[in-house]
Amino acid sequence: MSRKIRMGMVGGGRGAFIGAVHRMAATLDGEIELVCGAFSSDPEKSKASGADLYLPPDRVYGSFGEMILKEKALPEGKRMDFVSIVTPNHVHFPPAKMALENGFSVVCDKPLSFNTDEALELQQLVESTGLLFALTHNYTGYPMVKQARAMVRNGEFGAIRKVIVAYPQGWLSTRLEATNQKQASWRTDPKRSGAAGAMGDIGTHAENLAEYISGLRITKLCADLHTFVEGRQLDDDGSVLLRFDNGARGILYATQVAAGEENALHIRVYGEKGGLEWHQMYPNDLKVRWLDKPEQLLRTGVGDLYPAAQAGARIPAGHPEGYLEAFANIYRNFAHCLRAKLSGQKADPVYEDFPTVEDGVRGMKFIDRVIESSASDQKWLPV
Amino acid sequence: MSRKIRMGMVGGGRGAFIGAVHRMAATLDGEIELVCGAFSSDPEKSKASGADLYLPPDRVYGSFGEMILKEKALPEGKRMDFVSIVTPNHVHFPPAKMALENGFSVVCDKPLSFNTDEALELQQLVESTGLLFALTHNYTGYPMVKQARAMVRNGEFGAIRKVIVAYPQGWLSTRLEATNQKQASWRTDPKRSGAAGAMGDIGTHAENLAEYISGLRITKLCADLHTFVEGRQLDDDGSVLLRFDNGARGILYATQVAAGEENALHIRVYGEKGGLEWHQMYPNDLKVRWLDKPEQLLRTGVGDLYPAAQAGARIPAGHPEGYLEAFANIYRNFAHCLRAKLSGQKADPVYEDFPTVEDGVRGMKFIDRVIESSASDQKWLPV
Amino acid sequence: MSRKIRMGMVGGGRGAFIGAVHRMAATLDGEIELVCGAFSSDPEKSKASGADLYLPPDRVYGSFGEMILKEKALPEGKRMDFVSIVTPNHVHFPPAKMALENGFSVVCDKPLSFNTDEALELQQLVESTGLLFALTHNYTGYPMVKQARAMVRNGEFGAIRKVIVAYPQGWLSTRLEATNQKQASWRTDPKRSGAAGAMGDIGTHAENLAEYISGLRITKLCADLHTFVEGRQLDDDGSVLLRFDNGARGILYATQVAAGEENALHIRVYGEKGGLEWHQMYPNDLKVRWLDKPEQLLRTGVGDLYPAAQAGARIPAGHPEGYLEAFANIYRNFAHCLRAKLSGQKADPVYEDFPTVEDGVRGMKFIDRVIESSASDQKWLPV
Amino acid sequence: MSRKIRMGMVGGGRGAFIGAVHRMAATLDGEIELVCGAFSSDPEKSKASGADLYLPPDRVYGSFGEMILKEKALPEGKRMDFVSIVTPNHVHFPPAKMALENGFSVVCDKPLSFNTDEALELQQLVESTGLLFALTHNYTGYPMVKQARAMVRNGEFGAIRKVIVAYPQGWLSTRLEATNQKQASWRTDPKRSGAAGAMGDIGTHAENLAEYISGLRITKLCADLHTFVEGRQLDDDGSVLLRFDNGARGILYATQVAAGEENALHIRVYGEKGGLEWHQMYPNDLKVRWLDKPEQLLRTGVGDLYPAAQAGARIPAGHPEGYLEAFANIYRNFAHCLRAKLSGQKADPVYEDFPTVEDGVRGMKFIDRVIESSASDQKWLPV
Repeated sequence: MSRKIRMGMVGGGRGAFIGAVHRMAATLDGEIELVCGAFSSDPEKSKASGADLYLPPDRVYGSFGEMILKEKALPEGKRMDFVSIVTPNHVHFPPAKMALENGFSVVCDKPLSFNTDEALELQQLVESTGLLFALTHNYTGYPMVKQARAMVRNGEFGAIRKVIVAYPQGWLSTRLEATNQKQASWRTDPKRSGAAGAMGDIGTHAENLAEYISGLRITKLCADLHTFVEGRQLDDDGSVLLRFDNGARGILYATQVAAGEENALHIRVYGEKGGLEWHQMYPNDLKVRWLDKPEQLLRTGVGDLYPAAQAGARIPAGHPEGYLEAFANIYRNFAHCLRAKLSGQKADPVYEDFPTVEDGVRGMKFIDRVIESSASDQKWLPV
Repeated sequence: MSRKIRMGMVGGGRGAFIGAVHRMAATLDGEIELVCGAFSSDPEKSKASGADLYLPPDRVYGSFGEMILKEKALPEGKRMDFVSIVTPNHVHFPPAKMALENGFSVVCDKPLSFNTDEALELQQLVESTGLLFALTHNYTGYPMVKQARAMVRNGEFGAIRKVIVAYPQGWLSTRLEATNQKQASWRTDPKRSGAAGAMGDIGTHAENLAEYISGLRITKLCADLHTFVEGRQLDDDGSVLLRFDNGARGILYATQVAAGEENALHIRVYGEKGGLEWHQMYPNDLKVRWLDKPEQLLRTGVGDLYPAAQAGARIPAGHPEGYLEAFANIYRNFAHCLRAKLSGQKADPVYEDFPTVEDGVRGMKFIDRVIESSASDQKWLPV
Repeated sequence: MSRKIRMGMVGGGRGAFIGAVHRMAATLDGEIELVCGAFSSDPEKSKASGADLYLPPDRVYGSFGEMILKEKALPEGKRMDFVSIVTPNHVHFPPAKMALENGFSVVCDKPLSFNTDEALELQQLVESTGLLFALTHNYTGYPMVKQARAMVRNGEFGAIRKVIVAYPQGWLSTRLEATNQKQASWRTDPKRSGAAGAMGDIGTHAENLAEYISGLRITKLCADLHTFVEGRQLDDDGSVLLRFDNGARGILYATQVAAGEENALHIRVYGEKGGLEWHQMYPNDLKVRWLDKPEQLLRTGVGDLYPAAQAGARIPAGHPEGYLEAFANIYRNFAHCLRAKLSGQKADPVYEDFPTVEDGVRGMKFIDRVIESSASDQKWLPV
Repeated sequence: MSRKIRMGMVGGGRGAFIGAVHRMAATLDGEIELVCGAFSSDPEKSKASGADLYLPPDRVYGSFGEMILKEKALPEGKRMDFVSIVTPNHVHFPPAKMALENGFSVVCDKPLSFNTDEALELQQLVESTGLLFALTHNYTGYPMVKQARAMVRNGEFGAIRKVIVAYPQGWLSTRLEATNQKQASWRTDPKRSGAAGAMGDIGTHAENLAEYISGLRITKLCADLHTFVEGRQLDDDGSVLLRFDNGARGILYATQVAAGEENALHIRVYGEKGGLEWHQMYPNDLKVRWLDKPEQLLRTGVGDLYPAAQAGARIPAGHPEGYLEAFANIYRNFAHCLRAKLSGQKADPVYEDFPTVEDGVRGMKFIDRVIESSASDQKWLPV
C-alpha cells in the first residue's frame, strides 16, 4: 500500500488547541495526510478552518455526519481511511459511533466519552466491527514511559509495591471560566465535560499512566474531591488512595488549582529491588534507583533501551523529544497497524502499542468510582 | 552568663548513630559543651564511650538516674544545665520525666515517647515545672523551611489549599532487622519503637513539617498502612489523606520500602496565588511558583529572606548548609532561650523557634489516629 | 497564495539522519510540503528513498542537477518553490549555487560550505539574486534562546561582560570512523567535512549561538585544537578564548571526545546586572540570575515572554517542545518569509528570524581563524 | 593521648567571616578544642572576641607574636598544639613562619601567602622543622570530590583528556569595595590580597581542585585576565587555557563579576571511557557518565564508594553534608595526623589527605604565571 494513510478530522477548527496538536502529531512521520474535515459545528467556521489548512473546499464539510457519509461515497482510492475526533468530551461519542458504523477506524481524544454508557457502547462497536480505535492518552507515547513499562514488565524491580502518580496544574486557580476563556469554559461545564472536572480532564491521564507503567490494575479506591474556586461547577482538585490487583498501594492526585504549576505530571513506582521516577516536563530523563547500586539516569536514545523505547525515539540522543513527538507516537503506531490491516498483513508487535477503547472504558469507570467514593463515608470502593 | 551551656547526654554510646549527630549539632556554634553523659545502659560501655569523647571519668555515669542525681548534687558552677536524650523511643520517657522532675531542661529525640499517655504526662510536667523542652524534629531547622513557613504566614500565597508531603526511604526494603542491624532492629520492634513503624519514625517528621510550614492543623485523616516485608512486625509503608483546619486538603505518605530512596523527604504547598516545593536532600533550594510571574529559586543566604531564614544560615550564600546545620539550629535556638532563662532575660523571638513538647504530643496523637484509621472502614477520623 | 510551499530536497536518502529531521521540521506546521527530491547521488537509492516517502516517481531525480533543471521546466503551479540541502559539507556548495542561479531559494544544512571561498561566493549569489537563504543553525530556533537574545538586546542584563559557550559530545571518543559508521566517516574525513572536525561540526553551532544570544561579534580569538583519538585526521577537541566587540570576554569549547556526553550544548552569559544559563538538553528552561533579586526560571510558554519567544512555541506551557520544534521554527520562519516574497508582501518582522548566508560566512571564517590560531605561537588573532 | 587537640587562632575576630568557619570546622568532630587566640591586631577587639568565645581572658592575646611566645612558655599539658591562621592574605606569612619556628604545626587559610617568595620560605620551614602544615583548600574536603579523585586514580575513566573547571561568583559585580564592605576591601586591595584578585581568591581553588581530582599537573597555560569594574585595582575575571603533564587539555575560569552567581564552583573531567561532573553547590551529587552504560548519580554515603569518600561522610546517606563538613574534613584529617605525630604513631593513610604547603606553593606559582601570561603576547607559558 504505497501511499499515505488518509485522515479526516472532526473538530479542531480555528481557536481550538488540541486540533492543531493532533494534526502535527498525525503528520509528523509522513505516514498520514489530512484529506478532509468537519472542523466546527458552524459550517462557515469549518470552511474557513479548512482553507487555513489548504484543503480543497469540497473536502471541508459542515458536519461530521456529512463528512462520514460523503467520504464513504468516495472511491476507495480517494476517501479517508480513518476519523480523528478532537471535539470537547460531549461530542466524542456521536462521531465515533457513526464513524465505526460506517466502517471507519477512529482516533479519539480523551476521555473516551461523556459517560460510561457511551463508553461501553463504543467498546461493543469496536469489537463487533473489528475496526481500530486509538485513544490519545498521549503521555504513554513518551519513549521513557515505554522504557519504564518494559522494565517493570521484565521484572527488573521485582514485585511492585507502591505507585505515586500526580498531575498538578495551576491554570484554573482562579475562575477563568468566568472570562469565557474557551478551554476553561467547556472543561468546567458539566454539560460538556461530563461528571468530573480535574479528575476527568487530567486525573484519567494519571490513572492511565499508572496502569500503563505498572502493568497493574486498580481494584479499590478511596477518593476526596473538592472544588476550591467559588462558583465552579465541577471538582478542581482530587486525591485518591489506590489499591492494585497485586496488593500494591498507590496514591493519585490531580489538581488544577496548584497555582504556578504547568503540566507537572509525574510518577514514582517502587518495587522490591528498585524504583523509577519520571516527570512529563523533562520527559527524556528516567531516574532509576536500586537497592544495591547507584542511581541511574536513563535517557531517550541512549544505550540498550527496550525495543518500545527505541522505537519511540526519532533522533539521536541528546536532542530532546517533546510532547508532539510523544503524541505522534500514538498516531504512528496506529497508522502502522491500520496500514497492516488495510494491506491484510500482520502488524509488528512493537507498534501494537497505543491506548484503546478498553483504556477509555477503564477511565470512565475510574471517574464514576472516584465521584461515588468522594461522596461516600465508606472507605474503600471496588473499581 | 559568660560561659557555655552545659549538656549531659543520655544514650548515644559507641555504635549509635543519632547520638553523634546530637553532639555535633549541639556544639557546632560554640554555645554548648558536653560535660557529662550516661551513654549506655551498660555501665562499661558508657564509660568507654565517655572516654572516646575525652570526658573526665567522674562525669561519665552508669545510668541516667545516676547522672541526674549526681549532677544535681554538683555546685551550680559545674553541673549540667540540661539533658539531651538520644535513646530509642521506649527510653525517652523515663529520663525525660526524671530530668524535668529534678529541675533540668530537656532536649529529646523524636518521636516524643512510646505512647500518647507518656507524651501527655511529659506535657504536664513541662507546664508545671516551667522548664524548656525541645524535640528534635530537625527538618524544621533548615533555613529554607523557615523561609517557607514565613512566606505562608505572611500570606504571600493567599489561603493554602493543598499540602502534599512525602517521606520515602528505601533502607527497610528487605528484612534488615533479621540481620541484627542495630537501627533496623529497634525501629521494627513494637516493644522499643511503639505502635507504629515507618509512620512513627518518619511519618511524624512529615506531619510536623507540613504543619510547621503551612501553619495549619490536621483535623481529619484517612489512612492506609501496610507491611510489605514478610515477617516484619510494624508498618513499613503508609498513605494518608488529610484535611486541615482551614479546609485545605492534603496527602502524606511515609514509606521505608521505596527501594533506592535515601531520605527523600519533600513537600509541596499550594495557595491561591502560588506555591512552594522543598526537598530535604537539596535543602538550600526553595522553589516558589506564582500565578502571574516566573518561578523563583530562593536560596539559603541570598537576598531578602525573612529573619528566621536569615538567622538559620551560618555562612555566605552558595556554600551549602546541610543536615547538621539544620539540626544545630534547634540546639542553638534552644541554647539561646535557655541562656536567657538562666540569666533571667527575655529571649529574642526569632530564636523562640524549635519543636516543643506540644509538637511531640501532636505527633503521638497523629500516630494513634493513623493506626486507628488504617484498621477502620470509616473514611474520616478526627484528629 | 492559498497553498503549501513546495520543497525539493537534495540528499537525505535511506540511512541518512539529518534528512529525516529536515523533512519533519519542514512539514510540521502544515505550511510546507515535500514535492520532489534528489535523495542520493546513487539514482537507484534516490528512487527507493522517494518511494519510501510516497513521492510520485516522476518527481524523484537521479541528481540535484536533474532536479533543478526539470523542476524549473515545470509550470509554476507545480514546480518546487525552494531547495533544501541536507548533504555532507562538501556537497553543500554545488547544489546551493545551482539552485540560486536557477531562481530557487535555499535552505542549507550547516556549516555553510566546504571552505570560505565557497561561502563568499554563495553570499554574493544570494545578494545578487535577492533569493532567500536559510542556514539550519537550528539551536537558535528554541523559544528560550529567542527569549535570551531578546532580554540581552533589551538591556535587561546591562552591558554583557562574559560569555561561556560549550558543546560537549562523546560519540567520537573512540575511532568510530574505522567501523565505517556513516556519520562518523564523513565528519572525520577532511575531503568531505572540510578543514575542521569538531570545531566545524559543532563548534560553529556554539559560535553562532553565542553571537545570536549576546548580540556581540567575536573580534579576537586564541585557540587550542587537538586530536585525541589516534589515527583521526581532524580535530576532535578544541578550546578557544574569545574577545567580543564590546570588550566582553568569552570561552568556547567544542569536543567530541567528552565520553558519555550526548549533545550537551550550553551557554552562560553574564552582564552588569544579571546573567542567564541555558542547556540544549533541557531547552524549555532558561535560568536567569540577578544581582538583587532571586533567580528565576523562565519557561517556554509561561508568562510575558518576548514576541519572538512566544512565536517560537506551539503548545501550552508545560508540554515540552524539543529539537524538532526548534528546527521547525527555522523552516516556519523561512516559509513565512518566502510566502510573503512570493506573494509580493512584506514579512512580519517577528518571523524574519533565521540564520542566513551571513551567519554561514561568519562560521566559515571562524573555522579558518581557529585553525590558524591553534597552529600559531601568537596569542590573539583577529576575526 | 587521651585529650582533645588544642588550637590557637590568629585572626577571626568580630566581623570576620572565615574565622567562624574555621572554628566550627575545627571543633565539629570533638577532636579539637579552641584554647587561645589572637583574634585581631587590635588588642581590645581581640579581647572582646575571645570573650564572645568564652575563652579565659589569660588565653586571649593582643598579637600573634605574644600568643606564640606565651603559649610556648606554658606547660605541655596546657599549651596549644597548633596554630590556625585565618587572617587576610598579607598576614599569613608572619604568623605561619613564627609558629613553625617555635615548634607549632599550622593550619593556614588560602592562598598560602602574599607572594611566591614567602611561599617558598614556608615550604622550606615545613621541611626543615618536620611540622605539619595544612592549607584550607576546603573544596577538596567534600566526600564526592574524594570519590572523583579515587575513580580517576583507579583508572575508571582511562587516561584523562579534558578538564574544565570554573568558579563563577557575582558578588563583586559592582564596586563593593567602595562601600568599605570588609570582605571586598581587602580582597581587591593589592597591598593585602597580593598580585591577583579573583584569580588568587578563587582561581587557586579551581586550580587546586582540578589537580586534586585529575591527579595531573598543569604544565603550560595561556591566560586572559580582566578588570571589568571601573576603579578596581585587581582582576575580577580571568580565563585560562591549560595543558597538563599527560597531554590533557583544560580550561579554567574564575570570575567575581558573574552577576547573580553565588559560589558556583564546578568541574567536568573526561577520560577515554567516561567522565564526571561535580558542582560545589550540590556537593553530594557526583554525576558519572560512561561510553557504554547509563549515566550514574553517585551520592555521598550511598553504596560502595572509595575509602576516602566513605571516611569523608559523617551521617547516613540522604542527609546532606555541606561546606562546613567538607571544611571539617581538612581539620579532622589534620588532627588525626597531628595526634599520631604527637603520640609517636603512624597516621592512617586514609586521613593523610589534606592540602599542604606544596599545594600552596603550586597555587602561588600558578598566580604568578597567570598574571605573566595575561600580559604577554606569547601564547603558552610553562608552569
